[in-house]
Amino acid sequence: MTPDVKTKPTSDLRDVLEEYGTLTRDALQDYLPKLEPQRYLYDLIADYPARGGKMLRPSLCLATASVFGASAEDAVLAAVSIELLHNALLVHDDIQDESDERRGEPTLHAQWGVPLAINAGDALGFFSLRPLLENSLRLGSRMTLRILAEADRMAQESAEGQALELGWQHDNRGDLADADYMEMVLKKTCWLTTIYPLRMGALIGTRRARYDLDPLLRFGFYLGTAFQIQDDVLNLLGDARYGKEIGGDILEGKRTLILLHLMRESSTTEHEDILRFLGKPRDERTILEVEHIRAAMGERGSIEYAQAVARGMADAAHEAFDDAFGHASDSRDRRFIEALIDYVIEREL
Amino acid sequence: MTPDVKTKPTSDLRDVLEEYGTLTRDALQDYLPKLEPQRYLYDLIADYPARGGKMLRPSLCLATASVFGASAEDAVLAAVSIELLHNALLVHDDIQDESDERRGEPTLHAQWGVPLAINAGDALGFFSLRPLLENSLRLGSRMTLRILAEADRMAQESAEGQALELGWQHDNRGDLADADYMEMVLKKTCWLTTIYPLRMGALIGTRRARYDLDPLLRFGFYLGTAFQIQDDVLNLLGDARYGKEIGGDILEGKRTLILLHLMRESSTTEHEDILRFLGKPRDERTILEVEHIRAAMGERGSIEYAQAVARGMADAAHEAFDDAFGHASDSRDRRFIEALIDYVIEREL
Repeated sequence: MTPDVKTKPTSDLRDVLEEYGTLTRDALQDYLPKLEPQRYLYDLIADYPARGGKMLRPSLCLATASVFGASAEDAVLAAVSIELLHNALLVHDDIQDESDERRGEPTLHAQWGVPLAINAGDALGFFSLRPLLENSLRLGSRMTLRILAEADRMAQESAEGQALELGWQHDNRGDLADADYMEMVLKKTCWLTTIYPLRMGALIGTRRARYDLDPLLRFGFYLGTAFQIQDDVLNLLGDARYGKEIGGDILEGKRTLILLHLMRESSTTEHEDILRFLGKPRDERTILEVEHIRAAMGERGSIEYAQAVARGMADAAHEAFDDAFGHASDSRDRRFIEALIDYVIEREL
Repeated sequence: MTPDVKTKPTSDLRDVLEEYGTLTRDALQDYLPKLEPQRYLYDLIADYPARGGKMLRPSLCLATASVFGASAEDAVLAAVSIELLHNALLVHDDIQDESDERRGEPTLHAQWGVPLAINAGDALGFFSLRPLLENSLRLGSRMTLRILAEADRMAQESAEGQALELGWQHDNRGDLADADYMEMVLKKTCWLTTIYPLRMGALIGTRRARYDLDPLLRFGFYLGTAFQIQDDVLNLLGDARYGKEIGGDILEGKRTLILLHLMRESSTTEHEDILRFLGKPRDERTILEVEHIRAAMGERGSIEYAQAVARGMADAAHEAFDDAFGHASDSRDRRFIEALIDYVIEREL
């Protein structure tokens, strides 16, 4: 429908991310007040948001709201809410994954210990509701409750997805198929990263509580899954800018599409070796073993396989985009959303 | 105003706890569905609520709503929400305190590991909003948003209180006064346990978003602080029914009123010894040291001191009760709320 899009330079995309990112970050400050106890709480919750980040989620929400007819003022508090919740989950993720680094600096629990970091994550999660409540002055009570119902759905999906990923590690599962991975990513990643920002944007833009949000769910699924697979790839191939430990997913025993492919393509003995490695206590897994598995992923074509699936997801996302946004006329925000499809699988950080 | 209350047998109080507890537990089941992933999420979030408990918080909410004119049907979902959030915080508390037992059984993270337990606590916290959202069919959009604003305030206070308690342990603070403890307890305990249930009950009962809730804050502070001090005492003196490790607070380095009194009454050398014990890594603290400090708390009158303060809080609660509930005519629910004052400092579990 807009055949000129794919040839646009990505500088446009970065401009939009920069503009909406700055808008969201500025508005976010009101929700990270410098109150007491500053040392034990408010300094902690302000830490991750201050480390930067791509601001993909809030930008997607703001651009979608714009395409559907809302002003940035109508949607910026929804964008703030998403970013606060995203940071809440990052804090808890880092504890769950025993990660040492986040965006190139020590994780919050590495700095403050697990108890205070859990509490900071809880606080960020609770505080993520406040901008939605305060936006009721603009959007009215009924639309605010409609948006909160959407948040409720997203939270349930995210918790189920996180449970699947962590549960598979807990039980050292070696019997998973690609479809299991897709379901887990739909829940764990897509709902917060793409589906919820898209749907909130459409609700705020249309002001119609009963607007059909299913096409946005499909688009969000393909876009978000492409995003997650590329994240898994970067965890193996990324450079220092990536800001996390390279190979960390292997060390943590994450069931990525790449790992599932490798296990499928391995001999019975190799399969057992990998499963034995994944079943060991975390501190007994060695860097040498991680490197061995990472090399095997390259040799067996597991990384290329995942990249091909991500490409397929991106193709499906282009089709779903036409369905979800076909009604909208060309605009900077519409181009931004479509350009995100290729961006998420081509990005290097 | 109702001089006959104190002579009433506590069986009345237990009847009300039983009735409202059962009502809440039954309604709670709808919010703990048997969905997938059952093994990694829904079994976990159903665990603590199924272990029983006094059901003090939901009962206080239901009784207050009744005194202010609401039916149990109007308020039961608010009671469910409180109980879900309470259980969410218990799951995270147990991780933060490294507790092994909760209500006489292994804690959730002792059974499932920290990552899945953090996620279950997050899910319970998110799910606690759902009954409030669904109750908008009864209470309307505006009152629902008013109640959510109250929940937002409560969550902030609770997170600040938890941050103070954990932060003092993190920094091994030895310079705290009783007033610091009172502020921490107001935030950590009173808001969720008494103030929020009371205020939600009044909002639902009056249906007036601008009803003056300050008298309930004062009553809730005195009642909740008396409750917490008795909890600290039971942690030292309780029997097997208490369901947590006896002396656990000492082992965890909690700055209770009892510990603050002991440190104040100790010689400089003793003070330093206690602080050195509290500054050691958790796994280097011995049962012998815990017993030594517990014995000193008895010898120095620290436990009796805390009990006297709790008695003073209960007296102040009686006065605040007359202020907050003086307008209401005698009723079973009004008598229940007043009887809670003596119950919280006399209870043995």
